[in-house]
Amino acid sequence: MKPIALTMTIAATSLAANMHAAQQQRPNIILFMVDDMGWQDTSVPFTDTPTPYNRMFQTPAMERLAASGMKFTQAYACAISSPSRCSLFTGVNAARHGVTNWTLLRDQTTDEPCDSIIIPDWNYNGIQRVPGINNTFVGPSFVQELKDSGYHTIHVGKAHLGAFDTPGENPHHWGFEVNVAGSAIGGLATYLSERRYGHDEDGNPTSRFAVEGLEKYWNTGTFITEALTQEAISELDRAKRYGQPWFLYMAHYAVHVPIDRDTRFYQKHLDRGLSPREAAYASLVEGMDKSLGDLLDWVEKNGEADNTIIIFMSDNGGLAAGGQWRDGDLHTQNSPLYSGKGSLHEGGIRVPMIVRWPGHTTPAARCDNYVMIEDFYPTITQMAGIDPDKSTHYGHRIDGRSFVPLIDGTGDPSADRPLIWNFPNVWGLPGPAIDLNCAIRKNQWKLIYNYATGRKQLYDINADISEKNDLSASRPDIVRTLSAELGDSLRSAGAMRPLLKRTGKPLPWPDETR
Amino acid sequence: MKPIALTMTIAATSLAANMHAAQQQRPNIILFMVDDMGWQDTSVPFTDTPTPYNRMFQTPAMERLAASGMKFTQAYACAISSPSRCSLFTGVNAARHGVTNWTLLRDQTTDEPCDSIIIPDWNYNGIQRVPGINNTFVGPSFVQELKDSGYHTIHVGKAHLGAFDTPGENPHHWGFEVNVAGSAIGGLATYLSERRYGHDEDGNPTSRFAVEGLEKYWNTGTFITEALTQEAISELDRAKRYGQPWFLYMAHYAVHVPIDRDTRFYQKHLDRGLSPREAAYASLVEGMDKSLGDLLDWVEKNGEADNTIIIFMSDNGGLAAGGQWRDGDLHTQNSPLYSGKGSLHEGGIRVPMIVRWPGHTTPAARCDNYVMIEDFYPTITQMAGIDPDKSTHYGHRIDGRSFVPLIDGTGDPSADRPLIWNFPNVWGLPGPAIDLNCAIRKNQWKLIYNYATGRKQLYDINADISEKNDLSASRPDIVRTLSAELGDSLRSAGAMRPLLKRTGKPLPWPDETR
Repeated sequence: MKPIALTMTIAATSLAANMHAAQQQRPNIILFMVDDMGWQDTSVPFTDTPTPYNRMFQTPAMERLAASGMKFTQAYACAISSPSRCSLFTGVNAARHGVTNWTLLRDQTTDEPCDSIIIPDWNYNGIQRVPGINNTFVGPSFVQELKDSGYHTIHVGKAHLGAFDTPGENPHHWGFEVNVAGSAIGGLATYLSERRYGHDEDGNPTSRFAVEGLEKYWNTGTFITEALTQEAISELDRAKRYGQPWFLYMAHYAVHVPIDRDTRFYQKHLDRGLSPREAAYASLVEGMDKSLGDLLDWVEKNGEADNTIIIFMSDNGGLAAGGQWRDGDLHTQNSPLYSGKGSLHEGGIRVPMIVRWPGHTTPAARCDNYVMIEDFYPTITQMAGIDPDKSTHYGHRIDGRSFVPLIDGTGDPSADRPLIWNFPNVWGLPGPAIDLNCAIRKNQWKLIYNYATGRKQLYDINADISEKNDLSASRPDIVRTLSAELGDSLRSAGAMRPLLKRTGKPLPWPDETR
Repeated sequence: MKPIALTMTIAATSLAANMHAAQQQRPNIILFMVDDMGWQDTSVPFTDTPTPYNRMFQTPAMERLAASGMKFTQAYACAISSPSRCSLFTGVNAARHGVTNWTLLRDQTTDEPCDSIIIPDWNYNGIQRVPGINNTFVGPSFVQELKDSGYHTIHVGKAHLGAFDTPGENPHHWGFEVNVAGSAIGGLATYLSERRYGHDEDGNPTSRFAVEGLEKYWNTGTFITEALTQEAISELDRAKRYGQPWFLYMAHYAVHVPIDRDTRFYQKHLDRGLSPREAAYASLVEGMDKSLGDLLDWVEKNGEADNTIIIFMSDNGGLAAGGQWRDGDLHTQNSPLYSGKGSLHEGGIRVPMIVRWPGHTTPAARCDNYVMIEDFYPTITQMAGIDPDKSTHYGHRIDGRSFVPLIDGTGDPSADRPLIWNFPNVWGLPGPAIDLNCAIRKNQWKLIYNYATGRKQLYDINADISEKNDLSASRPDIVRTLSAELGDSLRSAGAMRPLLKRTGKPLPWPDETR
């Protein structure tokens, strides 16, 4: 009996050793998510040749990341924050999760009033992992999958997943073991420590958008972007001691309004000739970029560069409506893309994205195939070594498709794939393709349909990135085909649509009108 | 087709409604865990007639709970904190999880030096949910089961599950969505806000045992027991808004040393004639009891009394060694039980326990069957409506047995059941049945075996609660039977035993010596 027992012991030991080794070799992952960052808010060109905006912004860390990784030139998100972030966490398209506008207070919509239209009863309470809350989508969490599989999970910055007073407001609800400054808010009162990130001198919030959890930085002159970075690095130091693979969701409040001046960079941009408004915005962007650089430095100094995946992403296009914050004509701040945040034109939904995955991406690579925000769920879990065939996503279905084949060159999940947007809401700032619309992108074509006016726009995105030439009149065949596919997709997703106040009836689906 | 579709819609709606209703009806659960509270540190008698200690302490809230619930007169924990809490969270007996002494710093044991004995390589890094850390037990978490099944999970107070710089140090690692003041520490620097719970005026910790996360109570005159209670109530207010069933782990640092005076109650006990030392301890106990009362009030005022299970428990016996903190002869402070914290005599392991489960327990009920700390895992998950046949405990095996049958009167899981303790360590304070021993309780019998001396003690606990009459000489048959069962249980659990320094060989198992 002795030899057999001995063999079993050895086998068990080997198994444990292998498990240990496998755990050690799993890659760390940083998802660096910027808020409201436009496709052009960087010195990294996502076009064939650099643009004026690429020359205006200075983002050396993004350049460093792009030089060592893969740039995605057609990365899509939703047009505003909550839909994007809810898709990111659940892997579900916004047409199905129904968190179509931005969330804030429980049981209160954020839609602007509209005389003629009834906004549908969308999921203004955001996403949750448990049933029991009205107007919410119950879904899975890729972060919980990472945690359950052995990752240490760190949230730093903006969460914006569930409304105040719902369980989903808390990043710990989504599987994070650490949360720094994440809550129900989707914007911030101020970046300034002198204003205690939205608190008075007694520590009471002066705004619904006060950022909590950064008390130790109050009155220290630390811009919030820097405070969050220091907290993130402190957590990485801890994670290293833990010896687990880790996931850092570095979700900056930058570069959302208010465009406070990051004084570390502001004067330089003034000196470069930028106006005070543009210099302030460029300083906000560069402060964010400095954070990325600090994280790149950390992984290098700590010998983790070869074992850390870094994904850079924004949650929607740059703000180009309103006119209060930026120079230039309205809706031009993402040029050559048209319009911006809130819009289903490219300026609202196409965002800067870069992926560095040692051993997979090659330096200075570029991918022109399109990907969508809900694709991050299956992609990140696959990168982490979670077998997609074994995950049931806690009994939920996801819509996203892994873009690992695009990175590894083993396939094209975007070929003939329809991407869908649905925004049956009224956001607040007017502009081109903002409000009460839906859209589909398939191969080179994009159709935008306005529920209220019935207008359909058709663009050949590959030939006309600026969406100047509406081809809807000349290509009725494509309009018909895409209208049908969009209508089918929306209905099968259980999507909501606006109603006409006068009749109380829903407005037509895109394939119910010409 | 229409009628069928309609029926399906109705069915789906009913299912959702039922799920919602089921979620609403699941009971809230408060596990009120006191640190180092002895069996006699209360005015609630756990004996047939009240004892002098029952008259010395004043715990009106415990009386209220006992009057409306079920008292367990033979509730067992381990002899010190870490083993108990690790068993509580994982449902695994300490002989198997191997966290046999108290944990603190990573990769450092807390054993007192011993000239002749080598302490085995126990799991001094505590418990974790993931592999990759040496000297640790990887196990499941009943809190994660609660969270995954839809509970909102709140940790307030002492955690003490993993050593510093291991993932298990963080309550969020165990499935808590909220953590107030829980960390790797198993004791506290001070209860006093004037000493900022262990921080200097600049906010730097003055001790390894500084309690973090209660900054807002510093210098407010708030005893830590009260600060934790206020935080817990604030979290219950939030939980109520969430609309989920909730689990509150109210884990007081009280009544661990240092025995700081709770000035809300101290003078009263002096006036009652207690010595300063005993009055201080009685004030500490009464402050803890006031916390229980505040929680009982909260559930009543909020209409949750009929839907909230309250479980009162301590993690080990009262401190009776050392002599620095309490009056009376050493090892008498749990009288009629002998010895105290650290000992395998009843004074070290039998603890006060009360359960109120509306609709299940009857008022002023009493259960004399024995239960063990690892039983809380299957019991609480069963109470929460988690089907034991469907839970795999994340692929782990648990040792505990649900005591729901004892509450409902449907069975006796304690009949003929062996309970096991293993302490191959040297704690620090000497005393009867402290250090280098193991024990078994089965029906009325208890055998204690000392690894170092080979001594065996046998007691008939039902007849001799004070363990005055060692029957080992007169009942060698029982000694032999229990030694064999204890030895088998320890070996099958993979338990560790001390080694003799002189020979480097392990000391005999209880059934390897007479």
